[in-house]
Amino acid sequence: MDYKSSGVDIDAGHEVVERVKRLAKSSFTEGVLSDIGTFGGLFRPELTGLKEPVLVASADGVGTKLKVAFLAHKHGTVGLDLVNHCVNDILVQGARPIFFLDYLATGRLVPAVSVAVIEGIARGCKANHCALLGGETAEMPGFYADGEYDLAGFVVGLVDRAGIIDGRCIEPGDALIGLAASGLHTNGYSLARRVLFETLGLRVDSVVEELGGAVGDVLLRPHRSYLDALLPLVDDAARPVKGLAHITGGGLTDNVPRILPDGMAARIDRAAWTVPPIFRFLQQHSHLSDAEMYRTFNMGIGMVVACATDVAGAVSATIAAQAEDLNAVVIGSVIEGHRTVVYA
Amino acid sequence: MDYKSSGVDIDAGHEVVERVKRLAKSSFTEGVLSDIGTFGGLFRPELTGLKEPVLVASADGVGTKLKVAFLAHKHGTVGLDLVNHCVNDILVQGARPIFFLDYLATGRLVPAVSVAVIEGIARGCKANHCALLGGETAEMPGFYADGEYDLAGFVVGLVDRAGIIDGRCIEPGDALIGLAASGLHTNGYSLARRVLFETLGLRVDSVVEELGGAVGDVLLRPHRSYLDALLPLVDDAARPVKGLAHITGGGLTDNVPRILPDGMAARIDRAAWTVPPIFRFLQQHSHLSDAEMYRTFNMGIGMVVACATDVAGAVSATIAAQAEDLNAVVIGSVIEGHRTVVYA
Repeated sequence: MDYKSSGVDIDAGHEVVERVKRLAKSSFTEGVLSDIGTFGGLFRPELTGLKEPVLVASADGVGTKLKVAFLAHKHGTVGLDLVNHCVNDILVQGARPIFFLDYLATGRLVPAVSVAVIEGIARGCKANHCALLGGETAEMPGFYADGEYDLAGFVVGLVDRAGIIDGRCIEPGDALIGLAASGLHTNGYSLARRVLFETLGLRVDSVVEELGGAVGDVLLRPHRSYLDALLPLVDDAARPVKGLAHITGGGLTDNVPRILPDGMAARIDRAAWTVPPIFRFLQQHSHLSDAEMYRTFNMGIGMVVACATDVAGAVSATIAAQAEDLNAVVIGSVIEGHRTVVYA
Repeated sequence: MDYKSSGVDIDAGHEVVERVKRLAKSSFTEGVLSDIGTFGGLFRPELTGLKEPVLVASADGVGTKLKVAFLAHKHGTVGLDLVNHCVNDILVQGARPIFFLDYLATGRLVPAVSVAVIEGIARGCKANHCALLGGETAEMPGFYADGEYDLAGFVVGLVDRAGIIDGRCIEPGDALIGLAASGLHTNGYSLARRVLFETLGLRVDSVVEELGGAVGDVLLRPHRSYLDALLPLVDDAARPVKGLAHITGGGLTDNVPRILPDGMAARIDRAAWTVPPIFRFLQQHSHLSDAEMYRTFNMGIGMVVACATDVAGAVSATIAAQAEDLNAVVIGSVIEGHRTVVYA
């Protein structure tokens, strides 16, 4: 009996680690002081110009979107989902990411799969200008079904205390601008899989005309990062952005109120944007109420920006200038109320 | 059909989040700027006196030690394992932890279990003087067997660049001091479970006289943190500690060489300490070779300190003064070689 025979293959682990090291190195930014082989990753943050540096950190997973990746045997984009989700979660407080770490757990390590996953993570880190500083690849016999894995990520960002965005200046009358989502992002997959694969009996390679492609491709579209689109606004000393809400689990219904001060609510006009076909298709075949849909899915809005009405045009123009492909429209306004969303 | 019926219970999630918030708050240190309900956790590091602040980060899991917790229905200590493992991983580079985040994933959320796990994490954070700044509790239907979960942790620490410990000053002749482990820590559990539960047919509540207690209790002893024992040495401006190796997966054999400069090896005298009964018992019943044992298990040494021979006595005395219960003995020395461990 040796260690390998009880399910943990140290040599396969070493092979993955070597390949991961190279991937991680490709993402290294100026601040990285160490190779990834040391016990912890070392990062020297650039603090010049910051009066009171604040670290902002977030941990997240990809959720059951992973099951779609397993079915489709496509492991290259879940890493993008993971990084972009984490990056958005700290961007909403005004922080730009400086480094990222991942945790990848599987029952039996398949080097090609692990490397594909981490390739996606490294790609996501590069696109968000942050270093993949380290991570853990765990082989856990008996925890995961063959060919399956779980994935978690952890991002750290930096913001000057005066630049923290927290919604406290939001007032009734402020505009709410919705930024388009690229798909389901990373929420609602348990329900979506049930409707598409169980109720309708579709497969990942089933092409559905209404959806404009194969079910697997539509479901696997990576969670969008809003970093590049929003950075000029976040960095603007005039502070045009009062609040940012990342629309994740709980949808618009649960996430927009998180940034509202006491005594305020959000009025959202559902006619202001076109709900993408995948959400309409899911509602049609699940018979979910509107209330449930807007608390389960992002419904096509991945980020909400709160700003004064008189700068809403300029804010939208800045976003359009940064990201041509990103639709940004006023979807509602702040009203008096009790930290809820009132849909019109 | 609603979201709950596809396996994701948002309300049970909210209940856990509320209880976790209170647990996390109990660990908050001065640097924490936010409640845990915001998208990211905010931390203002104390940079006074640091010439060139460097962040050190590490990600880790608990591995299949979790399976023992499942069998024993004891969920209160795996959080300690997680935090202490992560803290040791950055301590070896001279960093003290400032904050921690966790990722807890389960098939179906059982609030009492999740809360017990996170209670352990919060306790570990408090004991290591770092804040539980945030985390993710993910309900992933179909990913985990009933009653099971996976757990990952992320720690961030701070060190002045001049205070980084990296082994580069290690020379032939230096002493290697071994600090006692509290048990298996978090390594070798796939093999240990196989030997104890499959080969020998023991159960978690089987009392084995040689082991001094029930198998489950012996296996679940929390991974020890060496932070308090080593902090005075790490902070000492005279830099008595040249290198620190956390003995995790790969044992002494793989971990000690990680801190050795090129052209050096470690000579370790196995007669220098008493291997605890659990390791002797596992070897006896697995017929593993010594080579395999020392690459799979920590064999009773959880941390190795490299220092000049002439300060080894003072280093041991400092450790003894900090942690009375912690056995620290010289277990070997640095020799010329090729970054391997030579056992005597």
